[in-house]
Amino acid sequence: MDVYLAFPPIATVGAPLSTVSTPALLLDLDAFDANLATTAELARKGGVALRPHAKAHKSSAISQRQLDAGAVGICCQKLTEVYPFVRAGIRNVHISNEFVGADKVAMAVDLARHITLSICVDHVQQVHAVGAAADAAGVVITVLPEVDIGQGRCGVASEEQLAALADAIAAHPGLRFGGLQAYHGGIQHLAEWDQRRVAAARSADKAADYVRFLEARGLPCPVVTGGGTGTVEFDAASGVFTELQPGSYIFLDGHYGSSEWLGGFRPRHGLFIASTVMSTAKPGMAVCDVGLKGVAVDSGLPRVHGAAAQALRYTAANDEHGILQLAGTPHDRLGERLLLVPGHCDPTCNLYEQFVCVRDGVVEALWAIDARGLSQ
Amino acid sequence: MDVYLAFPPIATVGAPLSTVSTPALLLDLDAFDANLATTAELARKGGVALRPHAKAHKSSAISQRQLDAGAVGICCQKLTEVYPFVRAGIRNVHISNEFVGADKVAMAVDLARHITLSICVDHVQQVHAVGAAADAAGVVITVLPEVDIGQGRCGVASEEQLAALADAIAAHPGLRFGGLQAYHGGIQHLAEWDQRRVAAARSADKAADYVRFLEARGLPCPVVTGGGTGTVEFDAASGVFTELQPGSYIFLDGHYGSSEWLGGFRPRHGLFIASTVMSTAKPGMAVCDVGLKGVAVDSGLPRVHGAAAQALRYTAANDEHGILQLAGTPHDRLGERLLLVPGHCDPTCNLYEQFVCVRDGVVEALWAIDARGLSQ
Repeated sequence: MDVYLAFPPIATVGAPLSTVSTPALLLDLDAFDANLATTAELARKGGVALRPHAKAHKSSAISQRQLDAGAVGICCQKLTEVYPFVRAGIRNVHISNEFVGADKVAMAVDLARHITLSICVDHVQQVHAVGAAADAAGVVITVLPEVDIGQGRCGVASEEQLAALADAIAAHPGLRFGGLQAYHGGIQHLAEWDQRRVAAARSADKAADYVRFLEARGLPCPVVTGGGTGTVEFDAASGVFTELQPGSYIFLDGHYGSSEWLGGFRPRHGLFIASTVMSTAKPGMAVCDVGLKGVAVDSGLPRVHGAAAQALRYTAANDEHGILQLAGTPHDRLGERLLLVPGHCDPTCNLYEQFVCVRDGVVEALWAIDARGLSQ
Repeated sequence: MDVYLAFPPIATVGAPLSTVSTPALLLDLDAFDANLATTAELARKGGVALRPHAKAHKSSAISQRQLDAGAVGICCQKLTEVYPFVRAGIRNVHISNEFVGADKVAMAVDLARHITLSICVDHVQQVHAVGAAADAAGVVITVLPEVDIGQGRCGVASEEQLAALADAIAAHPGLRFGGLQAYHGGIQHLAEWDQRRVAAARSADKAADYVRFLEARGLPCPVVTGGGTGTVEFDAASGVFTELQPGSYIFLDGHYGSSEWLGGFRPRHGLFIASTVMSTAKPGMAVCDVGLKGVAVDSGLPRVHGAAAQALRYTAANDEHGILQLAGTPHDRLGERLLLVPGHCDPTCNLYEQFVCVRDGVVEALWAIDARGLSQ
C-alpha cells in the first residue's frame, strides 16, 4: 500500500484532560491508588492473600501495580487472556474458570511450562483431559475444583462430585490438588450492605462445608479462593477464604458505585468515559459520541457525572451515538465534554485499547488494555 | 521480559470448523458472496450507487470485496475508524456522522490530503471549524449536510437550518457542497415488510423536499446518500437516493434475520459465533464460553442455531459465560460445540480481532477486523 497513515495519539502524557480524543476510557489515579491501598490493608488485616481478577481491567500495567501492592498473583478467566500478562513478566496466574477442548488444554500445558498455573474444574472429563496432557508433557498444573456456593452456574454441587474430582486429580502425576475455587458472583451486586453480609456468610459456610468434607477424607485445602468486590470485606474476615479475587475494586462502576457501603471499606469511583456532544440539532436533546461501541449497557445506561448531570441525562445508546435528554436553561452544548460513569466496568474496559490515566486533570500515563478481546 | 509467549492461532486456513478455538466470530462465505451479489444487483437495477457502511464489520478485507463488487466507496462513522481502510488502499470514504473538536478536525484534514473524503454536518459551528482548517491546509473536503428524515437524532429539521449550512459551506474555499446525508435508522428494524415500505417512502419524501428546497435556491444535490439494510430495496427504487449505505446486508443478525422480507430481496444469514459448552455441573442447564465479551446483547440474547436449538436455549449472558437452559432427553453436553446467532451484528463484530471465514465446514480465510475499537 502506498499510504501508511496513522492517526495521532488519542491522549498525550502531560497534556490536560480536555485534549484527550473522545471516546476515551479514563482512570482516576488518585482513586485507583487509594483503592489499591485500602484493599491491600483489608486483606492484610484479614490475614488473607489477594489475587486480583484481571478480567475486570485486562491490563498488565494494572496487574503489575496490584502485585507491587502485595498481591500473590492474578486471576484470569480465559486461556488466551493469560498470555499478555505472561509477556509482561507476571508468573503466577489462576484461571478461575473451567475450559474444555484440545486447543485450550494445549495452551494450559504451554503456559505451565513457563509460569505457576492453577486452573478450575467441575467435571472429571476436564480433569482427565488436562491431566493426560500434563502427564505427557511433564509439567505440573495445580487444580482447584470449583464448588458451587450459591451462584448456580459452574462448580460442583455435591460432596460426591467433589470427591470424584479429587480422585481424578490424584490419578495424574502432572496435576496437583491446590484447594477450592468458591465464588458467588450473584451476591456481589446486592445493593444493601447487610444483605451482602448475610449472603456472604451463607456462601462462606457452604465453602467451609466442602473444606471439612475433604479434610475428613484426608485432603487438606491449602487454598480456598473466591470473593469479589461487593463481598470482599466479609470474605476477608470469614476465616474460610485464604485468598480473595476482587476485580472491580480498583475503579468500581455504576452498579457497584450505587451499592451501600457501611463497613468502613468503601472503594472510590475511578472509571469514566470522556465524551463530547457532537450534535445539538434537536431541541431538548443532545447527542454525544459514546454509544454501544464505547460503553457496555448490560447493567444499565451510563450516568452523566458531575455538574452536567443536572442538565443532561443519558437515555439511549445507539451504535456510535449516545442520546442525552436536556433539562434546565437551554443553551447550545455543542462541543461540551462530558464524563460518563459506565454501568458495568468489565465489558466496558474490553472495548478500549488503553486506560487514559488522569490525576488532577492531567494525563499522567497510558496503560494498554493488552488482554482486550482475548476471550478464548 | 524473558518470556515472549504467543498463543497458537485461533483458526487455521484449510482446517475444519471444529478445530477453531471458541469464542470465534464466523462468516459464512457462501451467504456473504450471495449477499454481495444480490445487493449489487439491486443497486444496479435501481440506478443507484452502493457505498456500504464499514461500521457494521470494521474490516478492510470486507470493504475491499464490496468495492470489487462495484461499490463506489465506503462509509465510516468515526475519524480514527477511517485509517485502517486507508492503509488497506481504500481511497474514497464518507463519514456519515457529525464530529466536533480540534483533534477530529485535524484528522479530517489529514485524511483529505490522501483520499477523497466527505463528511456530515448539522451545525454551522462544525462547518466553520472544519472549513477554517481545510482553507488553511489547502485541501478540499466534500460536505453533505445531514437532514433529519424521521430518526430524530442528528441532522437539521428545517429548511432554514439547511440553508444556513449551505451558506456556511459556500464561505470556505476548502469545502465543497456534495449533496445530502439522509438516514433513518429507526425504520430499518421494523419487522413487517409493508411497514418498512411505507416508512421508507415517507422518509424518502422528506429527503426529496430538502432536495427541492436547495434546487429552488440554485443548489443542486449531486448526491443524496442514506438507506440501510432494512429499507435498501425501497431506497434503491425511490428515485430520491442516488447512493445507498447498507452495512448489515452482508451477514445480517438475529434482529434483521427475524424481519419479514417479501419483495424478492432477502439477504442470507451469514454471521455466527462458535461456542463450546464448558460446564455441565448443574442439572437442566449448560454453560458455554460466550458471554458479554463475546456477543452484544443490546438487541436481545443470542439464539442457538441449527439442530441444537431444540434442546438448548441461551437465557443469560454473564461476562464470560453464557447460560443455556436444557430441554429434551438429558445427556452430558460437555464439550459440545454450538453456533450462536448474535442479536446485533455491529457491536458484536467490534468485540473480535478477526472474522473466521468458513465455507462447507472448512476455514477458508481469516479477515482482520482492523478498525475494531476505533471509535474516536
